Amino acid sequence: MWFTKFQFMKKSFLTPGPSELYFTVEDHLKTALKENICEVSHRSKIFQQTFLHTVNELRTLLNLPQNFHVVFTASATEVWERIIENLSAKHTYHLVNGSFSSKFYEFAVQLQRQALKYQVPENQGFDLEKINPPAETELICLTHNETSTGVSMPIADIDAIRKKYPEALIALDMVSSAPYPELNWESIDTAFFSVQKCFGLPAGLGVWIFNEKCVAKAQALQQSGQSLGTYHSIPSLLSNAVKNETPETPNVLGIYLLGKVAEDMNRRGAAVIRQDTNYKAALLYSVLEKSNVFKPAVKEKKFRSQTVVVAEAAPENIKKILEEAEKQHIIIGTGYGKLKDTQIRIANFPTHSKEVIEKVANMIQNFS
Amino acid sequence: MWFTKFQFMKKSFLTPGPSELYFTVEDHLKTALKENICEVSHRSKIFQQTFLHTVNELRTLLNLPQNFHVVFTASATEVWERIIENLSAKHTYHLVNGSFSSKFYEFAVQLQRQALKYQVPENQGFDLEKINPPAETELICLTHNETSTGVSMPIADIDAIRKKYPEALIALDMVSSAPYPELNWESIDTAFFSVQKCFGLPAGLGVWIFNEKCVAKAQALQQSGQSLGTYHSIPSLLSNAVKNETPETPNVLGIYLLGKVAEDMNRRGAAVIRQDTNYKAALLYSVLEKSNVFKPAVKEKKFRSQTVVVAEAAPENIKKILEEAEKQHIIIGTGYGKLKDTQIRIANFPTHSKEVIEKVANMIQNFS
Repeated sequence: MWFTKFQFMKKSFLTPGPSELYFTVEDHLKTALKENICEVSHRSKIFQQTFLHTVNELRTLLNLPQNFHVVFTASATEVWERIIENLSAKHTYHLVNGSFSSKFYEFAVQLQRQALKYQVPENQGFDLEKINPPAETELICLTHNETSTGVSMPIADIDAIRKKYPEALIALDMVSSAPYPELNWESIDTAFFSVQKCFGLPAGLGVWIFNEKCVAKAQALQQSGQSLGTYHSIPSLLSNAVKNETPETPNVLGIYLLGKVAEDMNRRGAAVIRQDTNYKAALLYSVLEKSNVFKPAVKEKKFRSQTVVVAEAAPENIKKILEEAEKQHIIIGTGYGKLKDTQIRIANFPTHSKEVIEKVANMIQNFS
Repeated sequence: MWFTKFQFMKKSFLTPGPSELYFTVEDHLKTALKENICEVSHRSKIFQQTFLHTVNELRTLLNLPQNFHVVFTASATEVWERIIENLSAKHTYHLVNGSFSSKFYEFAVQLQRQALKYQVPENQGFDLEKINPPAETELICLTHNETSTGVSMPIADIDAIRKKYPEALIALDMVSSAPYPELNWESIDTAFFSVQKCFGLPAGLGVWIFNEKCVAKAQALQQSGQSLGTYHSIPSLLSNAVKNETPETPNVLGIYLLGKVAEDMNRRGAAVIRQDTNYKAALLYSVLEKSNVFKPAVKEKKFRSQTVVVAEAAPENIKKILEEAEKQHIIIGTGYGKLKDTQIRIANFPTHSKEVIEKVANMIQNFS
């Protein structure tokens, strides 16, 4: 490590993205520079090997079936746009319970789709019975983990939606949960995430996963005369991905680092990461349940996120705990948007150690 | 520097992008990590200061008037798409003389514009008399430096086009020349570049510059019912930029590094960078003119790029000089696409030292 002398005052970022860098990132950066990763052509063998390595490590980590393709965008925000452009002509249906699921819906509106939404208040999950996309729905947009409010969608609910609506494409936003959830991939057609959350990487890269049903849909839309966009349309991305390349000069360093961190995570094992995440989340929810000051913002246990734990309290206590944490060099996330003064968001990502989460749990427990 | 022990075998990348990292990048990366640049929120003061610093350094370096806005995208490729989406309803006109100017045109076609082009063969410039966009043209798309063939557009020609067509918006691709050209900013409305060329930075960031006339055009198109896209529409980018923010979580590290390198370049001075570039280019063209083996690929001197010097020769000599250079740890760019076997492209960017360019010039001079 380069900064041994600074370690003593190194801050811990328990913010829900950008967040703490994965603990191996500095070393990988050093290797990347040594190996000229930022300098080689994005049409070179070295790049193609890097691309393939990253995709393969992600396949292993996410247990991704072979009929899914993996491509890279600049952000998960970009993927919202590309999904609407490439996988719908008119009719999209969105489950909305916070700022990010709402933006996915708004993107469909801005792209002039006839977008419908089933919305519930912040910090709440969805009633399966009330999910009723009309027959003409082409695309159902789900958010596994609503980063703004810490509400997670149970895997069983995703499976149930697929069972009830086998025709429509199902898109899943996994921005702040991947690689945590153990998905049944047959229940979804496309998924995406960005790398500055659970992967602990510098921001500026999105990962977009889609299956053959998505490819067929995009081709059908194109044949019907619809523009799918340009370089980041599914046909363009795919024709490059089969060569382990990207249409444009991409964030090469980001793709390299993602592959290295995914490899590190595979060495640890997805099951162990999941177990550790559950342990740390349980610890946080347990002290929140017992606290007289802080409460879990999500009341129904089955909807509580394991990766973004949100607590609510009176504004003066929110302010105080953020300050107390900062004195201990721990940066906790504030509430999102209008919830800024009444909530905190604690990221519980793979890079966040048990020690630092225990420290925060103690802080909540001993708060007075 | 971290890699003193590897320096002796460090390669020089004289490729036209990705290319050699600017010589200060490693140190800035180190500082970025120390200052948690990858970890802070993109809604924080630290990010806003970073954004503002980068924009201000670019304004100085490019001598950019205040009526131009600076925003960030993922690549210059993305900007092609955003310009067509935001600044045209139907009629675009393109000057095409290589792969990249051609792609700009193709993007307009894919976005279903009635795109027209005036095309000349590779390695040639345009005849001012033959540039005749029809009256209904909304957007004229120019490429200052065609990276695939080393053809540059004289600044006087850009000025002449503006004078003749004061109504249409003029877009300028400066991907592989910025910050070299000393533009008359009143002659163009929007310009863009990526950072892995002359700025010597890791790929994954585009810079998009546009004036108030562009903002008005985008607003008018939106009011007419046209979709401008979503998060990277001009209104969305601008409403965030006034807060020194971006719509999405951007490539924060890339924005930080760009600001630092632009600051380094300002310390050196744009005039000095220009002078050094001219000196190094003159050296290369001079040995190419005298060589019996290699010839400048661009015959007309006024169209020769100062930042991407392209030479042609018989395939066996192209192969041989690439190999000879590699033995000396110098990576020279191959010809682009179908010109791969008959041309070489030598990047002459600010980070490329006089010494390494002199080495290449000697190699050409002594080639046998």
